[in-house]
Amino acid sequence: MSRLVLKFGGTSVADLDRIRNVACHVKREVDAGHAVAVVVSAMAGETNKLVGFCRDMAPLHDAREYDSVVAAGEQVTTGLLAIALQTMGVNARSWLGWQLPIRTDGAHGAAHIEAIDAKLLDERITSGQVAVIAGFQGLGPDNRITTLGRGGSDASAVAVAAALNAERCDIYTDVDGVYTTDPRIVPAARRLPKVAYEEMLEMASLGAKVLQVRAVEMAMVHGVRTFVRSSFDAPDAPEIVGANEPVGTLICDEDEIVEKNTVTGIAYSKDEAQITLRHVQDKPGVAAAVFGPLADANINVDMIVQNVSEDGRTTDLTFTVPRSDYERSMASIEANSEEIGFGGLEGVTDVVKVSVIGIGMRSHAGVAAQAFRALAGRNINIRAITTSEIKISVLIDAAFTELAVRTLHSLYGLDTQ
Amino acid sequence: MSRLVLKFGGTSVADLDRIRNVACHVKREVDAGHAVAVVVSAMAGETNKLVGFCRDMAPLHDAREYDSVVAAGEQVTTGLLAIALQTMGVNARSWLGWQLPIRTDGAHGAAHIEAIDAKLLDERITSGQVAVIAGFQGLGPDNRITTLGRGGSDASAVAVAAALNAERCDIYTDVDGVYTTDPRIVPAARRLPKVAYEEMLEMASLGAKVLQVRAVEMAMVHGVRTFVRSSFDAPDAPEIVGANEPVGTLICDEDEIVEKNTVTGIAYSKDEAQITLRHVQDKPGVAAAVFGPLADANINVDMIVQNVSEDGRTTDLTFTVPRSDYERSMASIEANSEEIGFGGLEGVTDVVKVSVIGIGMRSHAGVAAQAFRALAGRNINIRAITTSEIKISVLIDAAFTELAVRTLHSLYGLDTQ
Repeated sequence: MSRLVLKFGGTSVADLDRIRNVACHVKREVDAGHAVAVVVSAMAGETNKLVGFCRDMAPLHDAREYDSVVAAGEQVTTGLLAIALQTMGVNARSWLGWQLPIRTDGAHGAAHIEAIDAKLLDERITSGQVAVIAGFQGLGPDNRITTLGRGGSDASAVAVAAALNAERCDIYTDVDGVYTTDPRIVPAARRLPKVAYEEMLEMASLGAKVLQVRAVEMAMVHGVRTFVRSSFDAPDAPEIVGANEPVGTLICDEDEIVEKNTVTGIAYSKDEAQITLRHVQDKPGVAAAVFGPLADANINVDMIVQNVSEDGRTTDLTFTVPRSDYERSMASIEANSEEIGFGGLEGVTDVVKVSVIGIGMRSHAGVAAQAFRALAGRNINIRAITTSEIKISVLIDAAFTELAVRTLHSLYGLDTQ
Repeated sequence: MSRLVLKFGGTSVADLDRIRNVACHVKREVDAGHAVAVVVSAMAGETNKLVGFCRDMAPLHDAREYDSVVAAGEQVTTGLLAIALQTMGVNARSWLGWQLPIRTDGAHGAAHIEAIDAKLLDERITSGQVAVIAGFQGLGPDNRITTLGRGGSDASAVAVAAALNAERCDIYTDVDGVYTTDPRIVPAARRLPKVAYEEMLEMASLGAKVLQVRAVEMAMVHGVRTFVRSSFDAPDAPEIVGANEPVGTLICDEDEIVEKNTVTGIAYSKDEAQITLRHVQDKPGVAAAVFGPLADANINVDMIVQNVSEDGRTTDLTFTVPRSDYERSMASIEANSEEIGFGGLEGVTDVVKVSVIGIGMRSHAGVAAQAFRALAGRNINIRAITTSEIKISVLIDAAFTELAVRTLHSLYGLDTQ
């Protein structure tokens, strides 16, 4: 009997009617003969309300109490979904984080899942009882409720799927899959039937909000085939599309992807700021003097570009930071200016990072060169470049975002025919 | 170090400001040197909302899921109160029913508390940490959340006080104590400084909504001195009233009550219906034929009056049932009419039960006779009478409720001077 984990987010369980709709989706899978576990979030808006209560009570509050308050949201939806399923004649029961338990570390408010003992859970679901599991929450080493941080229900679902050795983890969300790029910018964007874990990880890191980064990492590590699909489809609609595939995007091992494109998608991130230090001494220890204090201040430095110096003595150093950390970063550098030693400090905040992603790049030379040529053809100036095995990122002026994304999307043949 | 348990109901924690006010009450007791545990209900309206969700999802729903959903309410208030206390510099943490745990039987939706292991709790509170405990909820033998039924937080508080061997259990509510009768009917009603457990039990059973019946029973069994007081008093107001007593009513052992009145209070219950069977056979088995089916239908029969028959053959049988069960009761009797055998069936729903309560009655003869004479003097017809050691109840027409209560209140000298 194949095990299936389904995950429904806050908008999918926003009211009683939507919870009934979720129950229909679940029933369909049960009727198809699967052993099913369902992971649910809190009703949309509920988590924000509870977080607001804690903040209003005290801006700096005990994270352990915060976790206990906020976890009440998922507690409500699990019970209601179990009732909805029972009403449809489906055997079901709710499980809270502490009941399974889903064991996490003690980092209240942003805990990591450490272990799920799936023995009892497996027995129950293979006996035909649907397990309705509260996402986003777990049990810390102090026997208190922990939460996994925003979007944590995705991670809960993937972890449950890994523990159950499930055939698939279906993430029901408000979009019907992963697209080649943001369809709001490129109407010709296509839904991808399959995406490799590594590609999805890059896309998620770059702001594609379909799936939480940590959930993708976990899926990759444990090899959990994760299917992103829409919860707003009629649950009883025929699913046969093309080659018997339901509508959505499967995130899986690259070996499972038969037709590999060189480039899978174009992502962009507006949350960038660029900082340039001019005439930095080209000697050991300078990079440490710049980036050490930034790391200490928990500022995440992304692109770093330093050229070989022309004269052998000074060079320019450029890097990007999240826009929200821009002021703090500039202050940190100025505070350490003597130790670093530079001729000038420049900062720009209206920049955007555009990335070309695809595991096919590994075996295809010239992908980057194509991109640079195409952008140059549009008179788009490239401020900085970084590359990885499966990604090329360029930093450009924000005004050219749409033009750059559309240009690259067409260049690699991603537009719908 | 004396242990104190404080309990705050839903209206006392209805919003963040009121929760802050509760925290002030708690801080005052901590500053006075007590080891404090606080039991809280859900924010007013929250439990009704959650109950409504369950009912709307399915009129007949799994009580285990209902318990899990509804218990989310107290989970939120415990965390918020702990945060409020910490903000005031008071060391505090929340405890959910399953964390202590408060062990109950498996009667989901109306569970009874069976045991509280107070060792850890006692250690924490005597070390100076306030325990903020979720009322109304516990952990069943199936490792699932149970709830105690409406008003169950009172029972939680008394049970915690018993387990901690607390000096007192303070029930903060929206009235400032127990009155000789309903002040809306008798403006001259007086707040009672002390009431014996037995008296309070009669009053609670008769509809005085200050304290849940089960909580009074538990207080009586475990000898928990329970103090009913208002949560709307300014928490820092001077408490010295008369003989150093804060304003409220102490429910305690009768030995602690120095000045005993013959009569302590007058209660009334409008939730009554009277049923009379005429010309019932005066032979064994008839009462069983009437009351057996009613008991099977979970109908609670209260007053039962059967006179010695005049002719040795037939008699009249009168009894009362809750008004909400009146139609079901009549139907039950008609369905069993052949087995019972009676000459006529009469029912009245506009009746009220007025009760005179006082432990002093035990040693004072003539209390009942006084009442009957006074009611007769007002031309109030008595339909039925029942008495216990510390209570006299009469069933009268509902139209005379106020007149009867006022008459008896004056008769026994309960009016304020």
